[in-house]
Amino acid sequence: MSSSHAFDQAIALTPLSDNLYRGATSDAFQNMVGPFGGTTAATLLNAVLQHPQRLGDPVSLTVNFAGPVGDGEFEIEATPLRTNRSTQHWLLLQKQNGEVVTSATAFFATRRDTLSEQQLSAPPAPSAGTLQRVDISIRNWFKQYDFRFVHGIPLMPRPADQPADTESLLWIRNHPERALDYSSLTALGDVFAPRIFLLRESFTPSGTVSMTHYFHATSDELAKAGTGFVLGQAKASRLHSNYADQVAHLWSEDGVLLLTSTQSVYFKE
Amino acid sequence: MSSSHAFDQAIALTPLSDNLYRGATSDAFQNMVGPFGGTTAATLLNAVLQHPQRLGDPVSLTVNFAGPVGDGEFEIEATPLRTNRSTQHWLLLQKQNGEVVTSATAFFATRRDTLSEQQLSAPPAPSAGTLQRVDISIRNWFKQYDFRFVHGIPLMPRPADQPADTESLLWIRNHPERALDYSSLTALGDVFAPRIFLLRESFTPSGTVSMTHYFHATSDELAKAGTGFVLGQAKASRLHSNYADQVAHLWSEDGVLLLTSTQSVYFKE
Repeated sequence: MSSSHAFDQAIALTPLSDNLYRGATSDAFQNMVGPFGGTTAATLLNAVLQHPQRLGDPVSLTVNFAGPVGDGEFEIEATPLRTNRSTQHWLLLQKQNGEVVTSATAFFATRRDTLSEQQLSAPPAPSAGTLQRVDISIRNWFKQYDFRFVHGIPLMPRPADQPADTESLLWIRNHPERALDYSSLTALGDVFAPRIFLLRESFTPSGTVSMTHYFHATSDELAKAGTGFVLGQAKASRLHSNYADQVAHLWSEDGVLLLTSTQSVYFKE
Repeated sequence: MSSSHAFDQAIALTPLSDNLYRGATSDAFQNMVGPFGGTTAATLLNAVLQHPQRLGDPVSLTVNFAGPVGDGEFEIEATPLRTNRSTQHWLLLQKQNGEVVTSATAFFATRRDTLSEQQLSAPPAPSAGTLQRVDISIRNWFKQYDFRFVHGIPLMPRPADQPADTESLLWIRNHPERALDYSSLTALGDVFAPRIFLLRESFTPSGTVSMTHYFHATSDELAKAGTGFVLGQAKASRLHSNYADQVAHLWSEDGVLLLTSTQSVYFKE
């Protein structure tokens, strides 16, 4: 592995045999229980990206967080379930001590030029350079990102005259800077805190159970985004009986929609 | 199987051995190539719903349409990947002649009363009774639903002064009527045509490659919705290089958000 960036180290995998890889959790991306889910998702995607049978680029990825990932080594089984002429479906299982801790499915495809239409514009936001970096250092992984909030900082009390709102809008990028690619975009799609934090204005035990990314970005669009910030918007539609959804979008600095992402998130009460 | 409703017949499964079921495609739900994807998704969910080890109710479901489902019999392997105290993760594979045609993951959980907050209200819409049923009978499966569009009828030319818009808003229910449950809600979440049809105003080869449902509805909410219509809204955020996303929501007649759903949809050009 040539890159010394902490993110590349965190998602690095060693091939063990056909369809089998070994990786290890990273202190730099430690969350409250186990690693930051975005790193786990990016590591699973990475197994496909470096698989010798891989066809095309990621279009969709679903990651199911089945159980806590313990500190240390894990294995990833990456199995191509079905390969068509220009599309490929994958099953990914992350295991520790023989037990599934994360499952995922991914869909890859070769993409061609077609009609191109963006229906959802980036929300108006002051440029990242005019906003203060929020220094949240209570979890290791926070330090690996540069967060610049426009609104919706989790856990912050809101003015008494303001209605409950679960929307966050913020600029984000890797810290230190790192050029955007499918791996880092995958992780960036998971940087939004549980929406329950915005309703409660205080900590509630909570965690993502399933996350789905749709990659709009083609490789040339990622190259163009470079080391720039991405603008992220996330909001919940409903929070009910222990589970909430989250619908999120990420745009490049020049307003290109790169990712649509959804999550189902557990919350305790 | 006690119900003679065409939908129940379409999703019916016969247990063959541990974790293995057999089903068959239904003429009533035939689409252009193979069965309506909503029926396929509901059939996969049904394998978990009737599995003796099933714990709780569906919270999330992701279905990957890997290849065409041929007319006739298929097998479904339903494997509990991980069972925790009150949550359960499933892997589902639909096969024909030993080849994977559809893969899926599902997350089930027992749910308790918690804070309940709906952030996304149902859009204003005239009641279903005041709208005309759209009679689309070019595919068999259309006849199994009662569609009442508020706006965004696929393939219809739009007024010249109206900007391109991929949003549809419509009331839908099974035809003949059938009480709502997790299976029928799963299928109802897939009734929206590819959004490219609204941009192009004409047919374009297109099809869902991956779909994710988040079930907000608890079983008491489904029982309350009964045989009523659900209000469905679907729109694309971006259509680019052969793939578009679709973000959809379904509300009950009394405005309760039942489902958040997303899709990644292939389109040819």
